[in-house]
Amino acid sequence: MTSDTNSTTAYRLPIRIYVEDTDTGGIVFYANYLKYMERARTEYMRCLGFDKPALFDGMQFVVHEVALKYHSPAVLDDLIDVTAVLVKASRVRFEMTQQIYRSDELLVEGRVKVACVNAHSKRPQGMPKAMSTTLNSQIG
Amino acid sequence: MTSDTNSTTAYRLPIRIYVEDTDTGGIVFYANYLKYMERARTEYMRCLGFDKPALFDGMQFVVHEVALKYHSPAVLDDLIDVTAVLVKASRVRFEMTQQIYRSDELLVEGRVKVACVNAHSKRPQGMPKAMSTTLNSQIG
Amino acid sequence: MTSDTNSTTAYRLPIRIYVEDTDTGGIVFYANYLKYMERARTEYMRCLGFDKPALFDGMQFVVHEVALKYHSPAVLDDLIDVTAVLVKASRVRFEMTQQIYRSDELLVEGRVKVACVNAHSKRPQGMPKAMSTTLNSQIG
Amino acid sequence: MTSDTNSTTAYRLPIRIYVEDTDTGGIVFYANYLKYMERARTEYMRCLGFDKPALFDGMQFVVHEVALKYHSPAVLDDLIDVTAVLVKASRVRFEMTQQIYRSDELLVEGRVKVACVNAHSKRPQGMPKAMSTTLNSQIG
Repeated sequence: MTSDTNSTTAYRLPIRIYVEDTDTGGIVFYANYLKYMERARTEYMRCLGFDKPALFDGMQFVVHEVALKYHSPAVLDDLIDVTAVLVKASRVRFEMTQQIYRSDELLVEGRVKVACVNAHSKRPQGMPKAMSTTLNSQIG
Repeated sequence: MTSDTNSTTAYRLPIRIYVEDTDTGGIVFYANYLKYMERARTEYMRCLGFDKPALFDGMQFVVHEVALKYHSPAVLDDLIDVTAVLVKASRVRFEMTQQIYRSDELLVEGRVKVACVNAHSKRPQGMPKAMSTTLNSQIG
Repeated sequence: MTSDTNSTTAYRLPIRIYVEDTDTGGIVFYANYLKYMERARTEYMRCLGFDKPALFDGMQFVVHEVALKYHSPAVLDDLIDVTAVLVKASRVRFEMTQQIYRSDELLVEGRVKVACVNAHSKRPQGMPKAMSTTLNSQIG
Repeated sequence: MTSDTNSTTAYRLPIRIYVEDTDTGGIVFYANYLKYMERARTEYMRCLGFDKPALFDGMQFVVHEVALKYHSPAVLDDLIDVTAVLVKASRVRFEMTQQIYRSDELLVEGRVKVACVNAHSKRPQGMPKAMSTTLNSQIG
């Protein structure tokens, strides 16, 4: 995981840290960064024209692999920026690198692989062609 | 809300407090007590013979009213006891009073009203007769 | 709890519903509305000039009573509005009524009592005079 | 990540899945598996004689790297087993591999790196010698 995805072209979502996000260590509970990354992916997909992407026409996107490195913690009241950059996309899965910043300081970085499955069988299922075409157009 | 439900006959579930449960104030995040109360209601229902009560045969139980008083906070690593006492039950709803203790100290007490709805329409729907009979048999 | 607090003068925070907010019943998990209400209270306090209100100068605000009525559920991707109206304030506590709307539909309404305590002893402690004066000025 | 850590010697914690754990996709929300893994690590540490390990004598354990693979989802009411196997330990960090099973089916597997920091400065700090000795004795 490198930092070169922090270009001005990365999708970027600002998120405020509330009490619900923190733990008794005085920092954001580390599992919660996965929530912020999903919020950024969701808003990025919305920008691309795909509403309610998690439950889309009998199809469902499920996370099947994540890897996160924590460099420095966010704390209560921080305003963080969460980025999302598409790095791979096929009909049945896509992959994003994501970073979390407080101003210029990199707090967390990660890689998330998402698979497209049938909402009922949970078996792999191709996403609509228009969607995979759009996703591929985002890869630099 | 009185404390007279802390009888030996109340259903009682022990729960350990982990980092995920706490907030930056050094105490359990207050919304989480609703989770512990649901765990106790679920295990109590299981004891009565009703597995997977939240999604039961096209029927669904939804919480439609809660009232909680917080007396003293739980903290990391506490082992708390969560009680559940049925106080009312009809075919379409039931009501429990619940208390949370650390040893003999009452931390939180609440009243939770649960409605039975159709899983699809979310409109009120009667629960099976055997279930409401069992629930009523629990009311002292 | 009446609906007359839905005046144009109520503080109002829009919140998007993400996958993290939902449960297997296909609706928002009911404990999470307490989180949205806290976000609205926090932003309202920020508007009044009080940053990081939950941990303020050795003082801490803790929720000591909540009462919620659930009328209709929010679902994935909803954009809800969360209001906050101050109804009481003293040096050691304040009380807000809060409502959650999807467009004009009232989904959830509640009353939340917050106490001001010493961050270390967790015993009641008066908030700064300027803060209680400001809070009182908000009560219609 | 291989499955050879599923030996009979791995620490193993059973966990029940409740409504709070699930999402609108009808499965456990993927970020929550990090919570279950932490519960297992915490109970494992308790078995080794270390209570309240997350906040231990001015020292604090913080997760600084995670990698998870999701093979199959857990659903409401499942009883899962979460394992923890120590694979590395020094004075300032340790590493565990963890797996989540439903009966014999591997649902999720991961690797978690934990660092020991000063609770106030959040800078690396050695854990007590007795603790690192005990941790090292666990590595097969």
